[in-house]
Amino acid sequence: MNIMIIGAAGMLGRKLTASLIAARYLGGKTIDSIALVDVIAPDAPQTSDLAISTRAVDIADPDVAKTLIASRPDVIFHLAAIVSGEAELDFDKGYAINLDGTRYLYEAIRQAGTTSPYCPRFVFASSIAVFGAPFPDKIGDDFFQTPRTSYGTQKAIGELLLSDYSRRGFLDGVGIRLPTICIRPGKPNKAASGFFSSILREPLVGLEAVLPVSEGTRHWHASPRAAVAFLIHAAEIDTASLGLRRNLNMPGLSATVGQQIEALRRVAGARAVSLIRREPDAMTIEMVDGWAKDFEAARAISLGFKAESSFDEIIKIYIDDELGGVLPR
Amino acid sequence: MNIMIIGAAGMLGRKLTASLIAARYLGGKTIDSIALVDVIAPDAPQTSDLAISTRAVDIADPDVAKTLIASRPDVIFHLAAIVSGEAELDFDKGYAINLDGTRYLYEAIRQAGTTSPYCPRFVFASSIAVFGAPFPDKIGDDFFQTPRTSYGTQKAIGELLLSDYSRRGFLDGVGIRLPTICIRPGKPNKAASGFFSSILREPLVGLEAVLPVSEGTRHWHASPRAAVAFLIHAAEIDTASLGLRRNLNMPGLSATVGQQIEALRRVAGARAVSLIRREPDAMTIEMVDGWAKDFEAARAISLGFKAESSFDEIIKIYIDDELGGVLPR
Repeated sequence: MNIMIIGAAGMLGRKLTASLIAARYLGGKTIDSIALVDVIAPDAPQTSDLAISTRAVDIADPDVAKTLIASRPDVIFHLAAIVSGEAELDFDKGYAINLDGTRYLYEAIRQAGTTSPYCPRFVFASSIAVFGAPFPDKIGDDFFQTPRTSYGTQKAIGELLLSDYSRRGFLDGVGIRLPTICIRPGKPNKAASGFFSSILREPLVGLEAVLPVSEGTRHWHASPRAAVAFLIHAAEIDTASLGLRRNLNMPGLSATVGQQIEALRRVAGARAVSLIRREPDAMTIEMVDGWAKDFEAARAISLGFKAESSFDEIIKIYIDDELGGVLPR
Repeated sequence: MNIMIIGAAGMLGRKLTASLIAARYLGGKTIDSIALVDVIAPDAPQTSDLAISTRAVDIADPDVAKTLIASRPDVIFHLAAIVSGEAELDFDKGYAINLDGTRYLYEAIRQAGTTSPYCPRFVFASSIAVFGAPFPDKIGDDFFQTPRTSYGTQKAIGELLLSDYSRRGFLDGVGIRLPTICIRPGKPNKAASGFFSSILREPLVGLEAVLPVSEGTRHWHASPRAAVAFLIHAAEIDTASLGLRRNLNMPGLSATVGQQIEALRRVAGARAVSLIRREPDAMTIEMVDGWAKDFEAARAISLGFKAESSFDEIIKIYIDDELGGVLPR
């Protein structure tokens, strides 16, 4: 089986690649090759038993999709996107990559299928940004898509096209709406959601972190490890069980910032907690207030998707996967 | 005020044109001109006090939108679409006109706004085809969009773009999801929904009609007169009351075929009813079963949109508007 990961150089792409190489199988079949695609050439992990290729391309170029699909991968993971903040700042770039780039991929697959049968599994990384406030306390599986960002609009359109192309038999799509990924490894960044990770990540290694919202702020989380497992499960499930509704709210953990901090105290002690500096920021408070806080995700759970059930677990996963299993003393 | 109607040659476009000419005002302002646009040149009604122009264009041509928007209409009604059946048969044509054609219009408006301020009211005729079964008994205003046709997918995407372009301030959009229009004037056509009209329209003038489904079949209806009133109200409402949620389920009348027939009996007598020939058709039964049956439409009703409350009223509107107010003897 041949796999392609588009957006392979990002955090999730790299973790997915490592996970597939370690597993060597996907859906019960041996993995023969993985093509890693991104706007910058992804690193090719060293491996002896399967072929890894890398490519740097711009998916907003209408001709690129054809050349990517020419190799007819059996499974395509599409993770590439201009993130929310940038898609808001650069309207044209967001639409070019998140909408047109995605549509070119679907179209290239459809066109490839006109010469000889081809219907790859297509896993689309969507987002809870397809939803917009006001929300019910717990968002059900049949809540409507009213995004409040261009990014969320582009993801919602990518989902609708994925469903229609699947219904027509051009591809075999599964769209998964990822929760906010926590704890995101790496340096603090400027994403408005970054503090959900940094208030845990920085104190765990003895560094200060800024909390711009109140402890009562509730949000929807899953670990990077859970997110990679969602992607792999989406590639493996029997899509007959999805019917025509190909896009799923992923499970996650609904937690307040206060609950995150209490978990940090249990795992890393009071000194870690004391490194969190409260600096309320009106703009962040307002933005975060418009985000989804809790989901039912009953359908995805019944289909076998699994997330963490406590923030202690999420923190321990970070310590295992990013800090070698131990906290620095 | 200058108005443009795209899709002006269709049934709703012609009735909207006539209604605007008769009113002479829209949103309290005098109408100076109406530009009628369609793929075939619309008829220009005779009128002395306002300028009517007509144009035949293909909105799937990327350059057409710019030339249409160059005149900077204050209000644009976008009714043009490849209908459901044809969009299903011709995948490329449906996407080219219903998705790309609509997006070109939005983009041309945004581009026009970069040279000098321009933010027209844009009324988008959407459809309950953005929804797909299974449904709750009554579809609420926050039910998700999972279309089961390419047409419904294209309308749902047009809505999402309308919202995002409105949020960004590029245009001032209102999307209205129209019920099935009943009684549709004209000859019987091959649309799967056509029988809802023909079982009333044909018997009213002494002709036979075929009923392919059971009398218990429930569906969601509004008269052509109500649909034109929706369009005009959508052009006139204060969009501040919509917030970021620019797309609305229109009110309608939920009725069974049996209720339609009883109304026909009350208005036109038993002889008219006897002209309905029952010929169950498995394919039509299955298709219609997947369509929405009832809506709350609470939001649209609170915003002042109004539909009929009985089929007697819908039949009488047809007799008034299409048969000169009297039944032929």
